[in-house]
Parts: sequence; structure tokens; C-alpha cells
Amino acid sequence: MTELNGGVCAPKGFIAGGIHCGIKASGKTQKKDLALIYSHSLCSAAAMFTKNKVKAASIIVSQENTADGKLRAIIANSGNANACTGQEGLVHAKRMAQLAADAFLISPSEVAVASTGVIGVPLNIGVIDANIEALKASLRNDAQGNDDALEAIMTTDTRKKEFAIEIDINGKPIRIGAIAKGSGMIHPNMEVPSHATMLAFITTDAAIIPSALNTALQRAVKYSFNMVTVDGDTSTNDMIVIMANGEAGNPPMTQESSGYDVFCAALDKVCAALAKMMARDGEGATKLVTVSVNGAGSEIAAQALAKSIASSSLVKTACFGADANWGRVLCAMGYAGADFDPQNTDVSFKSKIGEILVCEKGKTVSFSEETAKKILSEEEIEIIVNLKEGNGAAVVWGCDLSYDYVKINGDYRS
Amino acid sequence: MTELNGGVCAPKGFIAGGIHCGIKASGKTQKKDLALIYSHSLCSAAAMFTKNKVKAASIIVSQENTADGKLRAIIANSGNANACTGQEGLVHAKRMAQLAADAFLISPSEVAVASTGVIGVPLNIGVIDANIEALKASLRNDAQGNDDALEAIMTTDTRKKEFAIEIDINGKPIRIGAIAKGSGMIHPNMEVPSHATMLAFITTDAAIIPSALNTALQRAVKYSFNMVTVDGDTSTNDMIVIMANGEAGNPPMTQESSGYDVFCAALDKVCAALAKMMARDGEGATKLVTVSVNGAGSEIAAQALAKSIASSSLVKTACFGADANWGRVLCAMGYAGADFDPQNTDVSFKSKIGEILVCEKGKTVSFSEETAKKILSEEEIEIIVNLKEGNGAAVVWGCDLSYDYVKINGDYRS
Repeated sequence: MTELNGGVCAPKGFIAGGIHCGIKASGKTQKKDLALIYSHSLCSAAAMFTKNKVKAASIIVSQENTADGKLRAIIANSGNANACTGQEGLVHAKRMAQLAADAFLISPSEVAVASTGVIGVPLNIGVIDANIEALKASLRNDAQGNDDALEAIMTTDTRKKEFAIEIDINGKPIRIGAIAKGSGMIHPNMEVPSHATMLAFITTDAAIIPSALNTALQRAVKYSFNMVTVDGDTSTNDMIVIMANGEAGNPPMTQESSGYDVFCAALDKVCAALAKMMARDGEGATKLVTVSVNGAGSEIAAQALAKSIASSSLVKTACFGADANWGRVLCAMGYAGADFDPQNTDVSFKSKIGEILVCEKGKTVSFSEETAKKILSEEEIEIIVNLKEGNGAAVVWGCDLSYDYVKINGDYRS
Repeated sequence: MTELNGGVCAPKGFIAGGIHCGIKASGKTQKKDLALIYSHSLCSAAAMFTKNKVKAASIIVSQENTADGKLRAIIANSGNANACTGQEGLVHAKRMAQLAADAFLISPSEVAVASTGVIGVPLNIGVIDANIEALKASLRNDAQGNDDALEAIMTTDTRKKEFAIEIDINGKPIRIGAIAKGSGMIHPNMEVPSHATMLAFITTDAAIIPSALNTALQRAVKYSFNMVTVDGDTSTNDMIVIMANGEAGNPPMTQESSGYDVFCAALDKVCAALAKMMARDGEGATKLVTVSVNGAGSEIAAQALAKSIASSSLVKTACFGADANWGRVLCAMGYAGADFDPQNTDVSFKSKIGEILVCEKGKTVSFSEETAKKILSEEEIEIIVNLKEGNGAAVVWGCDLSYDYVKINGDYRS
């Protein structure tokens, strides 16, 4: 696998772009708020959506439009979630698909629609209407086009999240590229579909049938986006879409194809890379907190325990304060609803400068608080739990809880 | 019902006290860290304990000692949770019961033991040993004794939580008094037993058989402590104990007694009062947030929805910022796992200065942001949800999420 630049424009046959159309308020800088990704040929497509019962209009429209496993384009806006906007919201989301379709003379059913931003405020569809030609004109097949699209889907994100790789399948170079946004309202809940104001758009020039693409996506999300937690809030707007246009020229892959596993592994890698970026960029986060649970009785137990640790406000604030308060780790495990033996639990803290055992068989061991503090003061830290019971393992990515989380969310709308 | 002063000392036949023995560090002020409540006669007793799988030593000992429904005393320390302290911790908890028993020439099985504080640090049992006589000497049958005991169980609490009432049962005055602590690690999970570093000690001079007392406690906790959430963390040390010494002289109550319902209603009131105090004193909280869900399909659905709203970090930070961001309320309902129709959901914000409808049938209504901000700027605010579907209702008490929560928990141990 080779890492590439260019994100969603790295695979052949895709163009992307983004502009400021006026959904986000125009200040000194005109922040981009409207993005489009387009494939020159019809794509196999798969998608996953939030499981929140309150679904944005874009979710409803995109569920319909991806149901047949075919897409050509994704249009997305930031600055407004178009959620809790009633019948009018649905009309607006459909209009977004129609505008993109008209611009390329394709069917609106070949367009996925995504929105992210404030809930409950009517979408200003007029500015999208007025700027669709400008959006089309912004499309490019290079890193700049990708970057413009990426900027246009960001809200409170402070870092750009993109990733692209090239793999070789039976002698054919195949590329997968992706962009994502998401830093608040992040808590994974997409067993079949869904997550947390996270959007991820993935492109590939692989030829692959929709059902195989769907299976690959489900699997990749399970071990990536579904293993991220920022604040426990599952959004109304989460969406992951993958489009495969076949321009690499490989024989169309099925789940039985010899290259399918390689493709799946590459997609796993793309999704995991973006998932980690999301956790690292959690609202107000000062550090990436990786929680690894090993030796659990089952994978399900390991996941429940790891998520409970990574989601605990008390663990997260301790990470912020670089406080080796491992008791909170055990406490969070205790209410995870999963079976484990506290008396047989080891806990270590780790970062690039070292690893320190702080709890052995459920009780304290003598350790240097100073060393522990140094380890936990790094920007990427790991909480490692070993239950010595079975083979169940899980890795969850989260972040600390800082003053800035409160600041960002105390008055998000203004 | 008449409200009284004196907390656990308000009912006849109880004495209480508290001292600084040295578990908490001695600074300029010697904070009290050891409390005792004692009844002159043997009590019917009932208790509920944390459901966290990681249980403090005090929980294990108190579960044993309350199993027969009989108690005479409660000994409690703050400053150390005596949790994750292994076999030694258990020895220490048993020693605490023994010391109290020796001081009064009673059986250690008549003593409940409670601890709250840091997890994973060995308890300094020596200072309890050395100060048991001083603790006994501090006991008084008045408001001062109650106050000393209350101070000695506080950790990050900023307010004293006590309540006492007198009721009349068939012509006999009967009193119920209580003290509680709890501000962080508060998330209710005591369906049969348990909560979140919350301790609540309740005394009554009613004569009541243990099984009837237990039923009354279960019911009272269900609609009070189990409806409080501060940070979603369920502690290793939660404990609620009620002792009924019969000194009021009423004929011993059973569930069939004519006065039992009155007693239950009074106990409900005591527990609800303390629960609200806990929410109001949530770590770093600047306001009490009451979430009322009405018209749900079932009580269980209403509770799940109300808890999800009150627990949402995004709702809590919006409350802190007095931001009428009702979309976050709907979003939190959407991932609660309970059935409801978003298209039929109304949301209002309320405080003593007024009430404002912000969402009708799942979408925004025109409202004055200025008025909404004023309403949400009060110290006690209410989020009211109406689902217009059935008779299911629930009230949950929570608080906002402020910078100070992060500050308090970023380095709790130092």
C-alpha cells in the first residue's frame, strides 16, 4: 500500500470542489459551505447512515438515492444540518439533489445529499440555487479540488481529514481516497448504518459490484468509525458514502474475487486513518486517547469495556489533566455492562516516551507518579487494559475533555 | 408534612458526629473525614448499593451487614474510596465496622460501612483506629451532630445536603431525616440497588418491619436518586442506607398497615429533595436542569428519553451557555433507544421568569431568542418535552456542564 495525496481526487475519474455560497455567515473570511464530488462514470455505491431516530432531511433523501447501489455525485453543505425542518427540509434536500443532477444532466437519484451544522434552522436553499454553476465551475481533478470540497464540509473541525492510498490488485493499480469531517457529536452507532455529525466520502476507481462494496464498507466502519467516541452524542446527520467508478479497469470484483480481501484491507486502513483523525480532532481535545482492551471473554465485551472507558467524562478529564487516576478506568469498566473480573485486571498507560503499569490484578502497584504524568502529558496516549481471560480485543479512539469543549459547545450557534 | 432541621438527628433516638482523623490531608483547615450515625436501639434497616461490577470494600461489607435487615450504626469516611484496594481493603472495611462496634459494645454485623474519595489508594486505617474514641465523643443528638457527620462525608460537594420532615401516622408524630453527599460520578443505576459516588443516610423513628422498609426505599429511590445524572459515571461506592429504630412508638408498620402509604410518600419526598440537591451541586454546575418528558408511550420510554437529554454533553453545555439549542434535545432523544415520533414532539424551556415553546411537532417555531436566553440564564431551568402519544411521564434532574467540571476533574487527586 502506498499513501497518496489528493484525497477523493486521487482515484481516476473523480472531480471535486467547494465554494462559499452563503449558508455560513460571511465574515472577514468567506468560509466554504458547499461541496460536490462527481464521477465521470456511473459508480457502484454503498452508504451508511445515522441510527438516530431523528434523521436529517439529507439522510432520508440519500437513503432513497443509494438504495439501488448506484451514484454519480455527492452534494454536501455545512453550516446547517437541515434537520428538524419538517416537510420543507425534505423539499430542500431533494432540491439539492436536483440542482446537482441538472448541472451534469444526470438523474437526481444518482446524487447523495449530506448536510452538517445547526439543527432546526430552515436551510437557505436560495443561495445553493444561485451558486450551483459556481460550484460546478470549482470542480477539479486534483488535490486542490479535494481540498476545496474538504473545507466546505468542515464545521468546528480544526484539522483537515483526508487520506488516500494505492494498492495493487492482480497487477492493476487501484486507488481509494477519502475526506471526512467530524469533531463534535461524535459517538458511533452504525451497526448497520450510522455515526455522529461525521461525514465521510470515499471514492475508489476499483470496479466492484455494489453488494461487495457494501459488505466491505460495513466491515471497515465496524472497526473504525464505530470505534470512535468524542462526546457520546450520536448525530442526526451522520453519513458515510463510498463510490466506486471502475475506471481502474480491473474485472469487476465480487466477494469471491481474489483481490477482494486486499481491497477490504485497504478500505479498513482508509477508514481507520480517518477515524483516528476524528478522535484527535474531537471538539476541544488536546490529545488522542487510544483505549485498548485485550484478553476479554469476547470481542463484544472488549468493545463495550473500551467504549465505556473512552466515553467516561471522568477518564477524559483525567487524561486532560495528565492524572494517572486509573481508578476511574476500572470504575468505567464496572458500569459498562460487560462481564470481567476486576480482581484480574491490569491497567497501563502508554505514550511514545514509555509505558507504565498502574494497576495489577485490580489494585494499585507502586509506580512513579512523575513518570506517569510525563507519559500522560503527550499528545497521543494509550490506556491499555488486560483482562487475561480470553481472546476478545478492541481498540477505541477517543480524546480528552477540556475547557475548550465547554467553550465550543456553550454557545455553538452564535 | 412539616419540614424540620436536624437531618439524621431529627428523629428520636439517633446521635451523629464527625471529626477530622487524617484521611484527608491536613491543610490550614482540618476537613472532617470520619462520620458516625448511631441509634440507641436496634433498627430495621434497608440499603441499596452500586451496581458497578467494581465494588468498594465498604460495599461488600455493608451488603453482608445489612442482609438481615438490622443495623445500629453507620460509619463512613471521606477522602478515600477504599476501592480497588484488594484483600487489604476488605480487612480495612471490616476493621471500620469492628471499631464502631467495639465503641458501643454492639456486633460489627450491626454496622454499615461507607467510603468515598479516591479509588485505588490504600486506606489509612491507622488514623481511624487512633481516632475512634474522638469520633464517639463527637456524637450529639442535635443539628450540630448532624452537621458534623454531614461535613465528614463531603468530598467535592459545595453544598450541604440534608432534609428532615415530620409526618403524622394515626396520631403518632413520625420523623424521617437524612444527609447525603454526591456531586461527581453521578449517574443512577440502582434498579434494585445503586448509584454514583453518592451516599445517603436516612434515619427514622418509625417502627416498621425490614421488608416494608425495603420496599419503601426501593420505590423512593426509583423516582429520586435514580433520576439524577451529573456525568454519566456510576461509582464503585454508592450506597443508600435507611435505619428505622421504632422510637416513635407506633405499632410496627407492614406494607398492609394503614399508615404505610403516608410513610412511603414522606420517604419519597425526602429522597427527591436530596436528589435535586445532588443535581444542583453537580461538579462545576452553575444550574439545576430539570428534564420533564410527558405524553410518552410508556414510563420506561419517558425515563430513557429524559435521561438521554439530561446526560447529553451537548445539551448540558448549551444549558451552561443559556443557548436555546433545542435541536440538541431532539438529537439526544433520537439516540435514547426509546420509541417516539419526532414529528409530533414539542419542546419548551422554562424557568421562574417564564416558559417558551421552541419546537412544535419536531420543527422550529418562531420564538424570541432574547427571551429564551433570559429564561435559560436562571439558576433553575426546565426542559419540557411533550410527545402527545400516551401517559408515560418522567422527571430527571441534571445540571449543566461548565469549565469548572473540567477543572475539578482534570486533577482531582492533587
